[in-house]
Amino acid sequence: MQTPVNRRAFLGGLAAASVGTLASPSLLLGRTRAPQARDVRVDPAVLRRRLEELSVFGRPEGGAFADGVSRVAYSDADLGGRRYVMDLMRAAGLDPRVDPAGNIFGRRAGQDASLPPIVFGSHIDSVPSGGNFDGDLGTLASLGAIEALDRAGLRTSHPLEMAIFSAEEGVAFGRGLAGSRIVAGDIKPEDLTQVWNGFTRAEGIRKLGGDPDRIMDAVRPKGAHHAYFELHIEQGGTLETSKIAVGVVQGIVSIQRHRVEIAGFANHAGTTPMPIRQDAMLAVSHLTIAVREIVMAMPGRQVGTVGHVEVSPNAPNVIPGKVVATIELRDLSPEKLVTLADQIKARAAGIADATKTTIDITSLGGNPPALADTAMQDIVERSADAVGLGAARMPSGAGHDAQMMAQISPMGMIFVPSIGGISHSPRELTRWEDCANGANVLLQAVLAADAA
Amino acid sequence: MQTPVNRRAFLGGLAAASVGTLASPSLLLGRTRAPQARDVRVDPAVLRRRLEELSVFGRPEGGAFADGVSRVAYSDADLGGRRYVMDLMRAAGLDPRVDPAGNIFGRRAGQDASLPPIVFGSHIDSVPSGGNFDGDLGTLASLGAIEALDRAGLRTSHPLEMAIFSAEEGVAFGRGLAGSRIVAGDIKPEDLTQVWNGFTRAEGIRKLGGDPDRIMDAVRPKGAHHAYFELHIEQGGTLETSKIAVGVVQGIVSIQRHRVEIAGFANHAGTTPMPIRQDAMLAVSHLTIAVREIVMAMPGRQVGTVGHVEVSPNAPNVIPGKVVATIELRDLSPEKLVTLADQIKARAAGIADATKTTIDITSLGGNPPALADTAMQDIVERSADAVGLGAARMPSGAGHDAQMMAQISPMGMIFVPSIGGISHSPRELTRWEDCANGANVLLQAVLAADAA
Repeated sequence: MQTPVNRRAFLGGLAAASVGTLASPSLLLGRTRAPQARDVRVDPAVLRRRLEELSVFGRPEGGAFADGVSRVAYSDADLGGRRYVMDLMRAAGLDPRVDPAGNIFGRRAGQDASLPPIVFGSHIDSVPSGGNFDGDLGTLASLGAIEALDRAGLRTSHPLEMAIFSAEEGVAFGRGLAGSRIVAGDIKPEDLTQVWNGFTRAEGIRKLGGDPDRIMDAVRPKGAHHAYFELHIEQGGTLETSKIAVGVVQGIVSIQRHRVEIAGFANHAGTTPMPIRQDAMLAVSHLTIAVREIVMAMPGRQVGTVGHVEVSPNAPNVIPGKVVATIELRDLSPEKLVTLADQIKARAAGIADATKTTIDITSLGGNPPALADTAMQDIVERSADAVGLGAARMPSGAGHDAQMMAQISPMGMIFVPSIGGISHSPRELTRWEDCANGANVLLQAVLAADAA
Repeated sequence: MQTPVNRRAFLGGLAAASVGTLASPSLLLGRTRAPQARDVRVDPAVLRRRLEELSVFGRPEGGAFADGVSRVAYSDADLGGRRYVMDLMRAAGLDPRVDPAGNIFGRRAGQDASLPPIVFGSHIDSVPSGGNFDGDLGTLASLGAIEALDRAGLRTSHPLEMAIFSAEEGVAFGRGLAGSRIVAGDIKPEDLTQVWNGFTRAEGIRKLGGDPDRIMDAVRPKGAHHAYFELHIEQGGTLETSKIAVGVVQGIVSIQRHRVEIAGFANHAGTTPMPIRQDAMLAVSHLTIAVREIVMAMPGRQVGTVGHVEVSPNAPNVIPGKVVATIELRDLSPEKLVTLADQIKARAAGIADATKTTIDITSLGGNPPALADTAMQDIVERSADAVGLGAARMPSGAGHDAQMMAQISPMGMIFVPSIGGISHSPRELTRWEDCANGANVLLQAVLAADAA
């Protein structure tokens, strides 16, 4: 037996919470016997236990939870983790379905079957030696949110759909977000024949229970979802440092990569006087510092990284004659990224002159930004407030399935703090309390979107 | 029929040339029918032809002289080159002998068999993709000098010994100067069992015709040589830039290497704000620039190089968490190298603070300097003058067999210009005229040492 949510009353409840002046939300709901939507909570103990249980799939031999996980997409660990979560979904009556792209969906009926679903979820694949929160939290919190609605006997107007997207981390086949990217329609025939670790992507998808022969059936049209929400750990240290419980994601930044090729001259490190050297390592050193200076000189949260550097011939007794490196720039504003790249190229020209090298910087392209719908941002912010948590708006510097879903429907994302800002590491850690907080904000956001 | 060199007259001839005031050297020699030692010359055409012929051993498939050579020690190319030069030595009546270390020696008797020999030579092994002058010139010029004395019918007092040291380049087994190092007594039993490319050094030495079972018989005691000379290309650009024909080597620099290990924190390049990053690539960039600044701030010819850099995890989207690099410092003065290392360490401490990393710099040791005997430097300088060439004193930034021979006897080295200062490269090039000049200075220096 489930009680339909009174839309107006629920919104009123949220409004009351956000202004914080009205006496009792129960008065607003007007029906004291009905469960109050704003008081529904995810079970924190169950959420924790499942995060711990899921961590076993891909755990290092003889390790513990704190030793992280290697659950790379398409691996046996990935398959095991998927089975574990699908069993949980089945127990919750969700009847999990694997789409042709290998994504897992579990649908909970709404009051009005003609309405598009509210979709929420994340992924459970990991990077090698990753942590137990990236993706897992959003996935298991989504299940917990549905179970909380079941317990409260609340039935939303829109159908709800829990999603576990496949191969989010982009480790396999070197192209990220595969499952959600396919749902968003970004799929080409050659993607399926791509080979990685001895198998094609089509074979990988089949391993997951997908059907590459019907891959286009996985694509969903624009407007197919009423809304998409994703809870995720921040993977940065902003929330923890500023002691804010919830991050309201403004969007997923654009990532632009640039290939740097520096040509100096590889000469004898003993016989070549300092003034006449053409040292490519010296040039990339100046460039690395310049990237940081230029990125930091502009107000905002943009980041720039020189993370990949190859020095040739890379011998202690030879002046480096060649360096290939990558500059990666990220920001919500594509225009800002163009400006930064232009400033870096201008500085590179001066560095090339000063070091007697040539520096070529060519764009490797990247992802456009994926903005969160402003109404969805408002919903997430009000939902945090309804749960009694402080919130701050922030960009997501990392990519997420949400950025693909943003192409189909309004998207909202919820961040919770990462201790030390550490991610993609066994040391990735989010407090259990923050996990539960995030799950509750997700649940409230789903309800608010249903009412909106 | 050979005519003994009149020692006093020869020295007088050199003196006359160096002051340049006396009318005719023939008057000084006092015997007009005798060949004048100061006028003896190496055959430049033969020298050139032999450099071209030797270049075939290890030449790239289908390549030409200008495509350089890969004549790595112990390779078939090395064996072929050694056979070629030994045949030339035999034709010149030198009866080449391979010592237990695989070095080739060819002795020309002097007037006084009780005197220690004057030794001169170089090596013919190369680095992979090396040039046709490094080692080859000094080797073939030595043979040319002996042939010139034969043609002139001049017999020195001291025996002369041409040397071709094995495995100078230190490519095989990763430890340089093997043949000459053994002659100088720097050999340990474990050196012989070291494995490289699937064979032990003992097997390698046997391949060269040496006898590892009698390896200690290759060691020569202090004082075993009257003098050691080596002609070599400069491998730097100082002579060419300053248009000086001959470099009088003051010594072979000390090389000190330091291992740098920088520990930052590998974090997400998208989610980690710029101010809190612990970027090991940023730290090594500052350090690379600091090494250059510190080395250049001191007067002198010292050099410092960051030639080997490994970045971890080395991915475009991960802030580098670790860098391992090598700093190599070279100078004639070991004290200066200590000062430089101290200054670099002090700067590194500040860089570590500023970049929130730790920087450990540990000495990997190195070679002490090998100074050329000042009397030998004078002889080389006067010999250049006798041949009508300008000379300048300079350190050798590169290692040479001469640095091992300096441990046994007075050592002198002659440099000739390298075009563009390029070496260890197919583009290594020394003008034929400079090759002949160097050979003639070598010949005159041998005669001068014989008379000294």
